[in-house]
Amino acid sequence: MTVPRLVLATRNPHKIDELRRILDGAGLAVHLVGVDVFPHVHDVVETGTTFAENALLKAHAVAAATGLPAVADDSGLCVDVLGGAPGVFSARWSGRHGDDKANLDLLLAQLADVPDDRRGAHFACAAALALPGGVERVVEGRLTGCLARAPRGEHGFGYDPVFVPEGDVRTTAEMAPPEKDAISHRGRAFRALAPLVGELAG
Amino acid sequence: MTVPRLVLATRNPHKIDELRRILDGAGLAVHLVGVDVFPHVHDVVETGTTFAENALLKAHAVAAATGLPAVADDSGLCVDVLGGAPGVFSARWSGRHGDDKANLDLLLAQLADVPDDRRGAHFACAAALALPGGVERVVEGRLTGCLARAPRGEHGFGYDPVFVPEGDVRTTAEMAPPEKDAISHRGRAFRALAPLVGELAG
Repeated sequence: MTVPRLVLATRNPHKIDELRRILDGAGLAVHLVGVDVFPHVHDVVETGTTFAENALLKAHAVAAATGLPAVADDSGLCVDVLGGAPGVFSARWSGRHGDDKANLDLLLAQLADVPDDRRGAHFACAAALALPGGVERVVEGRLTGCLARAPRGEHGFGYDPVFVPEGDVRTTAEMAPPEKDAISHRGRAFRALAPLVGELAG
Repeated sequence: MTVPRLVLATRNPHKIDELRRILDGAGLAVHLVGVDVFPHVHDVVETGTTFAENALLKAHAVAAATGLPAVADDSGLCVDVLGGAPGVFSARWSGRHGDDKANLDLLLAQLADVPDDRRGAHFACAAALALPGGVERVVEGRLTGCLARAPRGEHGFGYDPVFVPEGDVRTTAEMAPPEKDAISHRGRAFRALAPLVGELAG
């Protein structure tokens, strides 16, 4: 019996690790491959203005280019006093795509004068599945909390070092990966997507 | 007869020029002085999360410290796909307060992938009057438009070089100052405030 293959439509090694852990944990009998093994697949420009729009854009592009079911996520940090920004711009907040430190330093500088009781934020993730024929599903997950004034912790990536989930005092970068997965926006979104993957692409 | 004095609660020379033009144009018989002539008045930290809140914060601080009626504005650029950000953070968007070029360059870089039909934005201004006794008024003005991809024009300041008002093809930095005043968020807000200044502080 051939185990069905599913493409993870991301080149971010941190995200690939996280998605593998989460989807493996959901007990899916699929073989996960990163989009990196398909050198002819080009990155799509994330022109969407919502997480769901970008996640679907990426999943459809990879499904069409590989002929395999593809899952993608788009996720980011939504800061209350910024009206939900950085949002879909989280990974390019400093203008330098994927420069976690520059993005995080910029956000802290922008919010330097914002008092502690107004530093509410949430992480959001849209997880999308697309089949080569055009079938699609998208679900969302969220983790609410607030922003610290300086980075703490060595785990995670992105804005993890400054994000303190509601009901905790640690940042998500101070949590072990499985502990973070259990509550994270990405964990929630992909656990919600897993049964749909099993049903449509398993 | 002594002409009543009114303090403009800003140290930004561009704003002082603009406010003088607008309030003078409204025919107010008041003597406008910049807060710079009161060396003992310290800047307040703009901890507000709305333009009105920050404008009132500044006007009250200056009125209390000088014993004179004070007007202040807080204004900024609200970008649709950023959920209204930079908003109250417009002048410190790059983390460097008042560095117009850094702020504008950062915004253009953040929005590099945003297509032309999603680059809607508006300028907003809250204009506040505060009397030493605590009386306050605040009004708002707005100018809607969209964002260009590169700066154009030599007039104005802040984000003027990339802001194209609805119904025009020029940026507000390509308009002569009186032409900009006639339509601008700050012009509208201060023209609405002028009769209240005349009534309460004239």
